[in-house]
This record gives sequence, C-alpha cells and structure tokens, in this order.
Amino acid sequence: MNDTAGLKIKIQLMCGEEIAMGPGKADLLDAIRQHGSISAAGRALGMSYRRTWLLVDAMNRCWHDKLVDTVPGGGRSRGAHVTPGGEAILTAYRAMQAAADTATAPLMDDRLHALIRLHPLPSSSGAL
Amino acid sequence: MNDTAGLKIKIQLMCGEEIAMGPGKADLLDAIRQHGSISAAGRALGMSYRRTWLLVDAMNRCWHDKLVDTVPGGGRSRGAHVTPGGEAILTAYRAMQAAADTATAPLMDDRLHALIRLHPLPSSSGAL
Repeated sequence: MNDTAGLKIKIQLMCGEEIAMGPGKADLLDAIRQHGSISAAGRALGMSYRRTWLLVDAMNRCWHDKLVDTVPGGGRSRGAHVTPGGEAILTAYRAMQAAADTATAPLMDDRLHALIRLHPLPSSSGAL
Repeated sequence: MNDTAGLKIKIQLMCGEEIAMGPGKADLLDAIRQHGSISAAGRALGMSYRRTWLLVDAMNRCWHDKLVDTVPGGGRSRGAHVTPGGEAILTAYRAMQAAADTATAPLMDDRLHALIRLHPLPSSSGAL
C-alpha cells in the first residue's frame, strides 16, 4: 500500500478467493530476503510467528512454484530464502505498484487536494 | 475495487486516518444518484441503515463541501442527491480507478498468469 499525498493504492493478485500477492506479502518477501529467516522477517514486521507462517503458506499454495524455500535443521545453511520464481513475482508486483502510482498521481491534482480536508470533522454519528 | 483477471486494485483517498473516498463510498454515491434516497441506496447495496449513514457522514466530514445533500420531510422533494461537488469527486475517483487499471493490466501478462494457480492448494496450516 503506497501513500502519495492522501492517495492509497492497494494491489492484490488473487488466486480464487485467496490473496496470492498483496502489500503485506510483498513486504514479507522483502524482509525474508533481508533476514534469511521467516521468523526473523516476521519479527521485523511486528507479526506473530503464526501469522507470518500463514502468509508464507498462502503464497506457496497460490503459485505453481514455491516463493519461499526453507532449509530446516541446525546447520549453517538453515533458514529461508526467496526462490528465483518468488523474486520474479515480487519484481512484477512492485512494477504494478509503481505503474499504478505513476498513472494516478497526476489525477490527485491541486483541485482535488483543495477539496479534501486534512483531518475529518468530528463524527455526528451520535445523532443516528 | 476492480477485478481484471485475478488483479484487484483498491484506491482510497485518505483524510487523516479516515477514508474520504474508496470503492464502497463511490458505489454508494452511484446508488444515491440512482435511487434519490440514502436508505434506498443502502438497501440496494445490501448495507444496514446505520452503516449507510456512517459512510455518508464520513464523506461529508472528510471534504470541505458536502457530497450528499438531503431534503428532510414528507414532501415531493424529500430524499437525497449527490451535490455538484460530490459528482466532481466521484468522477475524479473513477478516473483514478481507470488510470490504475489501464496502467497495470499489461503487467498482468501471460507469464504471470501462467505462474499463478486458478485455485489455491489446500492449506497446510494444520501442521503449524
């Protein structure tokens, strides 16, 4: 989810009813690349161990190739890495984000900016 | 939220932490235009009366001009309509949607389509 002056664009690649790739999963792939470990990546993003694994599991079930591969055990090579297929999908996803941002930013023009408040007025929902 | 072959794009215009315009609010404005009534518009979208009013209230609090105006009472003119300012904002929002769709659709190419499954594999979360 990118934020350009009050404009948020969220791109999701769907596999049936499941999100195969979205803002959270893309950020998780980036963190796994950086940390070389699923649990360390989740911690860096402030996610629970369970939620982190559910996101990885969903990605691996939604694509024909695994996006994240793990090496179990206690050896030096233990950990997780983003597969070449995962790298390609992440690159394509980031390109879609960039294309959507570039295409919409000029439409969030001064006129529209002048119409929107910086902060909402207080809610009148008490009157409902 | 538009759906182009597994690709969903959700655009939100933010006013602080509140969503000033998004897929649900844009659809509600369309329905108010069509039905001339907030409650009829909400019914047509399968929303509760309370939720419908909360969305209208949020829109009216997030923009300098009211997007929806109501005429109370029992007369012929009773009902709701989208203001000229609301029409302009809705048009700008739909243009952003279209621009994002047009920009990203070519990136959802055959190669990416071939990588994503039509339906996810069963969850292995029982193993967690």
